[in-house]
Amino acid sequence: MKVGIVGIGLIGGSFAVDLRKEYRNVFLVGFDISPENQERALELGLIDKKGEASDWSSLDLVIVTVPVDAMLKVLPNVLDQISDDCLVMDAGSTKRQICEAVAGHPKRRNFLACHPIAGTEFSGPTAAHQGLYEGTTMIICEVEKTAFKLQERGMELINKVGMRVRYMNPEAHDKHIAYVSHLSHISSFMLGKTVIDKEENERDIFDLAGSGFESTVRLAKSSPDMWAPIFEQNKDNVLETLKEYIANLRDFKEKMEEGDFKSVYEQMLNTNRIKEILKGIPLTKTTK
Amino acid sequence: MKVGIVGIGLIGGSFAVDLRKEYRNVFLVGFDISPENQERALELGLIDKKGEASDWSSLDLVIVTVPVDAMLKVLPNVLDQISDDCLVMDAGSTKRQICEAVAGHPKRRNFLACHPIAGTEFSGPTAAHQGLYEGTTMIICEVEKTAFKLQERGMELINKVGMRVRYMNPEAHDKHIAYVSHLSHISSFMLGKTVIDKEENERDIFDLAGSGFESTVRLAKSSPDMWAPIFEQNKDNVLETLKEYIANLRDFKEKMEEGDFKSVYEQMLNTNRIKEILKGIPLTKTTK
Repeated sequence: MKVGIVGIGLIGGSFAVDLRKEYRNVFLVGFDISPENQERALELGLIDKKGEASDWSSLDLVIVTVPVDAMLKVLPNVLDQISDDCLVMDAGSTKRQICEAVAGHPKRRNFLACHPIAGTEFSGPTAAHQGLYEGTTMIICEVEKTAFKLQERGMELINKVGMRVRYMNPEAHDKHIAYVSHLSHISSFMLGKTVIDKEENERDIFDLAGSGFESTVRLAKSSPDMWAPIFEQNKDNVLETLKEYIANLRDFKEKMEEGDFKSVYEQMLNTNRIKEILKGIPLTKTTK
Repeated sequence: MKVGIVGIGLIGGSFAVDLRKEYRNVFLVGFDISPENQERALELGLIDKKGEASDWSSLDLVIVTVPVDAMLKVLPNVLDQISDDCLVMDAGSTKRQICEAVAGHPKRRNFLACHPIAGTEFSGPTAAHQGLYEGTTMIICEVEKTAFKLQERGMELINKVGMRVRYMNPEAHDKHIAYVSHLSHISSFMLGKTVIDKEENERDIFDLAGSGFESTVRLAKSSPDMWAPIFEQNKDNVLETLKEYIANLRDFKEKMEEGDFKSVYEQMLNTNRIKEILKGIPLTKTTK
């Protein structure tokens, strides 16, 4: 099997590692806008060769893992160049605009719209590692628009890397993922900003920070190149979650101002239910 | 050495485990408002006996690890009952009101005001474990008010369990810890609340949550019995941090509404500095 990886960072590179382990005789071709990343991926053995124009027609599978703004242009271009028997999967954190971008493409049936719920706050080919996907969730959108035979090829890969599958439509995906992923990135970034703004002249204050702060602010290490386009593409849903988050914070603040610590207590107690809810989430394997 | 632990939960129990390892012939006496916790601590071997009124006068050291509202009453009572040669340490997450509560006590010199920056989101004696304090920070306030000989006894313990020490005054402690600890608990609780409120009729949505959400919302598992009194005692400082956090979130939201994703990008990029800052924080040992 000849596989193209477009964007060989944490996500694409980790697929490359798993594919090499799971498929005998896999041959991995890497494309990246950054020649440094491409070179690094080759040195690390993530890919077997740097991709060239002449490779496209011979690929059996292409995984496109570029930021979601780039995805809107890259994906149709990739579809333009592949053979009729090639499957193209993406890994974008938004789905509506991406699906729209290829909706009318003559090779729409070659595309499987995917969002792997996996990753760390690190990026680039050096962050790639085996097992990133084990036990995590792959969301697939508009599966019915993909050719049966190519659906099968995609499902085989998803099973081999150890993921479970959830099918959704792109609109529902973007709405729900705003709550369970996009909002937590903003809460974390703004927490980091608040503390840095206040404390930047007293750097040793961070000596006082414990693992709780580290955990809550972890996502503020994430790449703006990846996340700014996500917030832009999912603007309406993200704004909705932000509105509700700010309203909850203001309510909590007002309760504190009024000295109503009984309500403060009850809000926290009710939210403790998150313990049960989180039991279904796979353990973080590499948070640091 | 005969040691009393008042409140044998995660914090007190973990001190008990480390003391047993580090001190030969240590004898541990456990007090707790909950007979079940006390019994459980005995079964787990955290303590050698349940504390009784007759034990107080023979103790060399007492570690008081109760919620900060209870601390204001428990601490003076403990000081009333100990011998002149006994050291009392607390572990409260606030320091100003606690120091005030014993400021005029005839045994003020027997007290060392402490805040160990350590813990997990779990509580109770079953959560206690060895090594919780290894590599973490102990903040000590008003050290000059503690008798020299007893300061030494406290420092020996702190060194033995592997902590580094930072000296601060109680007001500075409460102000800075609001940023690096109290605020992140509120941001996490409100994130959990926002997502639960929205998604509680669609529980399987949490299947879509990844390790990023899990990390950011981890502190929302924390005990309201511990945290509501902390927010109450540190109300003014916490309100200040909340005001700034909400202002930053509103600004981020406005930038998104205006379509100014260049500013959104730059705010995230600037906040990425948290990577460097966090390098000084000890690794989380038990996040799950």
